[in-house]
Amino acid sequence: MSNQRPKPLSMSQLRETAKRCKNWGRWGPDDEAGTLNFISAEDVVAAARLIRRGRVFSLALNFDRNGPQRGLWGNRFNPIHTMLATGTDALSGSQDAGGLRYADDMVSLPLQCGTQWDALGHIFFDDQMWNGYSAALVDSNGARRNSIDRVKDRMVGRGVLLDVARVRGLQALEDGTAITVRDLEEAAKAHSVEIRRGDFVVIRTGQMERCIDAGEWGGYAGGDAPGLAFETCEWIHEAEIAAVCMDTWGCEIRPNETADASQPWHWVVIPMIGLSMGEIFYLKDLAADCAQDGCYEFFFCAPPLPITGAVGSPVNPIAVK
Amino acid sequence: MSNQRPKPLSMSQLRETAKRCKNWGRWGPDDEAGTLNFISAEDVVAAARLIRRGRVFSLALNFDRNGPQRGLWGNRFNPIHTMLATGTDALSGSQDAGGLRYADDMVSLPLQCGTQWDALGHIFFDDQMWNGYSAALVDSNGARRNSIDRVKDRMVGRGVLLDVARVRGLQALEDGTAITVRDLEEAAKAHSVEIRRGDFVVIRTGQMERCIDAGEWGGYAGGDAPGLAFETCEWIHEAEIAAVCMDTWGCEIRPNETADASQPWHWVVIPMIGLSMGEIFYLKDLAADCAQDGCYEFFFCAPPLPITGAVGSPVNPIAVK
Amino acid sequence: MSNQRPKPLSMSQLRETAKRCKNWGRWGPDDEAGTLNFISAEDVVAAARLIRRGRVFSLALNFDRNGPQRGLWGNRFNPIHTMLATGTDALSGSQDAGGLRYADDMVSLPLQCGTQWDALGHIFFDDQMWNGYSAALVDSNGARRNSIDRVKDRMVGRGVLLDVARVRGLQALEDGTAITVRDLEEAAKAHSVEIRRGDFVVIRTGQMERCIDAGEWGGYAGGDAPGLAFETCEWIHEAEIAAVCMDTWGCEIRPNETADASQPWHWVVIPMIGLSMGEIFYLKDLAADCAQDGCYEFFFCAPPLPITGAVGSPVNPIAVK
Amino acid sequence: MSNQRPKPLSMSQLRETAKRCKNWGRWGPDDEAGTLNFISAEDVVAAARLIRRGRVFSLALNFDRNGPQRGLWGNRFNPIHTMLATGTDALSGSQDAGGLRYADDMVSLPLQCGTQWDALGHIFFDDQMWNGYSAALVDSNGARRNSIDRVKDRMVGRGVLLDVARVRGLQALEDGTAITVRDLEEAAKAHSVEIRRGDFVVIRTGQMERCIDAGEWGGYAGGDAPGLAFETCEWIHEAEIAAVCMDTWGCEIRPNETADASQPWHWVVIPMIGLSMGEIFYLKDLAADCAQDGCYEFFFCAPPLPITGAVGSPVNPIAVK
Repeated sequence: MSNQRPKPLSMSQLRETAKRCKNWGRWGPDDEAGTLNFISAEDVVAAARLIRRGRVFSLALNFDRNGPQRGLWGNRFNPIHTMLATGTDALSGSQDAGGLRYADDMVSLPLQCGTQWDALGHIFFDDQMWNGYSAALVDSNGARRNSIDRVKDRMVGRGVLLDVARVRGLQALEDGTAITVRDLEEAAKAHSVEIRRGDFVVIRTGQMERCIDAGEWGGYAGGDAPGLAFETCEWIHEAEIAAVCMDTWGCEIRPNETADASQPWHWVVIPMIGLSMGEIFYLKDLAADCAQDGCYEFFFCAPPLPITGAVGSPVNPIAVK
Repeated sequence: MSNQRPKPLSMSQLRETAKRCKNWGRWGPDDEAGTLNFISAEDVVAAARLIRRGRVFSLALNFDRNGPQRGLWGNRFNPIHTMLATGTDALSGSQDAGGLRYADDMVSLPLQCGTQWDALGHIFFDDQMWNGYSAALVDSNGARRNSIDRVKDRMVGRGVLLDVARVRGLQALEDGTAITVRDLEEAAKAHSVEIRRGDFVVIRTGQMERCIDAGEWGGYAGGDAPGLAFETCEWIHEAEIAAVCMDTWGCEIRPNETADASQPWHWVVIPMIGLSMGEIFYLKDLAADCAQDGCYEFFFCAPPLPITGAVGSPVNPIAVK
Repeated sequence: MSNQRPKPLSMSQLRETAKRCKNWGRWGPDDEAGTLNFISAEDVVAAARLIRRGRVFSLALNFDRNGPQRGLWGNRFNPIHTMLATGTDALSGSQDAGGLRYADDMVSLPLQCGTQWDALGHIFFDDQMWNGYSAALVDSNGARRNSIDRVKDRMVGRGVLLDVARVRGLQALEDGTAITVRDLEEAAKAHSVEIRRGDFVVIRTGQMERCIDAGEWGGYAGGDAPGLAFETCEWIHEAEIAAVCMDTWGCEIRPNETADASQPWHWVVIPMIGLSMGEIFYLKDLAADCAQDGCYEFFFCAPPLPITGAVGSPVNPIAVK
Repeated sequence: MSNQRPKPLSMSQLRETAKRCKNWGRWGPDDEAGTLNFISAEDVVAAARLIRRGRVFSLALNFDRNGPQRGLWGNRFNPIHTMLATGTDALSGSQDAGGLRYADDMVSLPLQCGTQWDALGHIFFDDQMWNGYSAALVDSNGARRNSIDRVKDRMVGRGVLLDVARVRGLQALEDGTAITVRDLEEAAKAHSVEIRRGDFVVIRTGQMERCIDAGEWGGYAGGDAPGLAFETCEWIHEAEIAAVCMDTWGCEIRPNETADASQPWHWVVIPMIGLSMGEIFYLKDLAADCAQDGCYEFFFCAPPLPITGAVGSPVNPIAVK
């Protein structure tokens, strides 16, 4: 039933939902961490107890020229990795005057070109961002508020995988498929896992794996995709989770549920709820392991690079079971 | 006594030590992880038990134009963070045709400009790198062997802090101070902590904090520094630790113990021992906490960005107690 | 006499001068070339007649890490040149499968880090830029009006050197020295050269050469400097010249003649007069030649790189005598 | 007849041609300018006499994200232009504390991504480059010999257009079409223009215009193309021209005339003859003007950016008639 397209979303619905979900001021007027505040020290201790087998999963796609960016959205490009010194230089002898044979390198990349966190300063609602700060605080010098460096020690806690594709018996959800609240609840039930306050909720659609298997990213970055229905905003708000992380470019369903706004779910969850969002997560190995051992919860540690004033960060998220 | 300069190191000593410490082939001919192989799944489970209070520490310096690079070494520069879209753009209305008000950004940075991991492909010994691979495998297209992406799920385990500065009763060791095996052992003893196989050994000199307090990096990146004496190579080899991480630019003592090689300790520990090395770690807060609660061991998770073919990676290392 | 500091400039004087010099609409409402319109085809033909000896001068500083940027102003940095393929790679044999041995490279640079043109979109007066276009037309996607690519075929004509330093008998004017209208007129007289409508007026202070001789850029980029007095705005307006090019970072005197505005001369000449401005020109060789043959006019060709939407461009300006 | 594919080229033919065309030492052991030495001061003076109407042509394609690079060859990408300050920032008031409202920007680009010069250090023949210098002199720090900055004041002289497409009555030559010596001679004859020693010979295939008209670069950068037959090496050598410039990605015919070498014509003309080569030139407007006035010679000024140690340079070549 949830394969049906949701009803078109109106701008007034969007604004009403935004109003209902608004957490501004909840953690004081100076807060820049949003729902990461839901994670308590006790939650971190409890999450550590989920490490039972010592199995470590990297949820990052490699960062390189073969990444998903195909020029569809926002001037983002794939990482450009270049060398400042090489082994071939070393072999030529030209480094020997310096007494050290070495290689060195650099990278240029959009912070959201691959596996990444959105910072709370990434999306605005009208003229404001999370907690009511003015959008004007994000100029060419970076974000003076809600930048990713403010949460550099906050991305640790309990992770829960909701493998929606697997629960539906699919390799991958088709593009344009809505993931509804009922889908999330059914997945949790199927996995015998409970979503709790302060969780990092990791949702698998299988879309990334479909692209990898096909050897072709196509519209992955900015085109059509399976994703969360707008209605999940309220569920997220009520569930008081810390973050949503997915294996798609933008978490929410595309085409979007309205033609009047782009990424309407983003309009609400980032600036209004204050939700941290992880995108382009590689979930294949973790999902396979969860399916095998039946355990869908794990210790989660996904530290962003604290780039001062940045509105996103590449990340290598780690799940440990 | 260890404040004395070590005796000058000869190239034959360097080569003999390299020979004695050589781990090539120890984990098979195809290994690219080196001493990270010492970490067992049981070690990870045991490390998780060190999470008792749920306190999370970021050991990263922020990445920005105020970083430590001052042009002293190897064409490294501080991170250049630029915006692809801004809140001021949003306020001008120019984004509204697209239906989303947002900010977006990119960064260009040398992979070893700030808090970072050296990959095993970073340093060569003569014509070879870790496990005997030819230096020619690192060319302008990156490293085909021993690149940082090969260990993207390996940087998790038990961390131990050896706060050498504090044990000596100093805010910071002076530049040029050698940290000897005895210093390491005394620090462990003073902290009542045991160094074990597979540990991430984090060593504090206080040098970074001295620079931060002075508001001036000076020669931090490539100039003189306190650091590990060459003799620690053998201790590292015997202790079978997974990694060394420090609050200095290059871990080892500078000026180096010989004028015939630059970074002689690097010559041995990276290509010969196969040791992962973390540099420019920010240790102030973790060290203060350890001094307070007397517990110098913790869960350590420092996932590198898996940049394909890279010989280093910026990182936000996380310690959890 | 002109060594004296000019009287402090008031904001009302600045605004009155701006009003008097305003050329908006002079070349129609769609113009994006400003004073470059003063150059006629006949002027180009006449300028070609100044090529008498076939001697070619490059007026560019090399672009590299040793450039003048020292972090004093606006996040500009020196060029970062990196290789995509090298001769050492070629010698290692790794390119041979591709059938070609080659080197290749890239550069990252602020467009105004070295010898450069300011585009007319570089400076705003209140909310507008040249010809009355809104400043909002320059957002993170670049300049939709007054970008440098609009004048890609306009930087050709008659060049005239006014060697103010030499006329005053100095190697270099001291920092903070004002160049007044009288200085310009005296220089022209001393050189027996007439400034004409449509000219590229190249002015030498000797500051760059002083820095090069000292082996130290110091405050060259953004610090104190000799430069044009604010009063020259009106002279420039009346003389109907095409452009001013100088051997300093910012053409005008620094410290500026007021504390109430930064670069007050820029406020007028770029957005109001519509003047193209060349900065960080290397003039030593040209000036020496002019002193020797007594001829201070030449053919001038300084094509900007037509980077779409850019507000400046690095350039290798050519003078031919 | 010249539409026929040339006979396959053997490696021994390639090597024999290279030997016959070798100019090493011709201008002394320290030369780094190659055939640009053919241009005399008198040639420059004579070229200036070709400026009769004062009409200026830019032969550059704009540099932006819509450039021809499609990832087919050598890790080259299209220019990435980003802003360091914007008009929208200015309007937000955030710049006013600094007293200046301005925009500023930077670019990252492969030096050969668009309209460009190949430096003599770009291509190697076996282990050497132009004038016999070792390929080892081009490492990750750039080219110590034959870099583009060495010829910063040499790209001025007489230009001649050979509009091969127009002479054949075509909008554009088909991909894979060989341009032979006979084609060049017939074009010169049809244009009533003589090729002379020291000329910049500009050859039009129409391929770029075909792509622009189609709104699709396709295989322009690194795919099939019309271009010079290998046999033209000897003609170039004998004609003693200064440079060849074309409206294609790589001047020579693709697919190449042999499967045993990539870009065999490059093997000879750059490292052996010492020829400067301009690629990706925009020739539509110049060609239309030449067709109209029947005059195929002009003053040519195409100053490279003197990026220290670079093996190529973006350029805005100027033709003046």
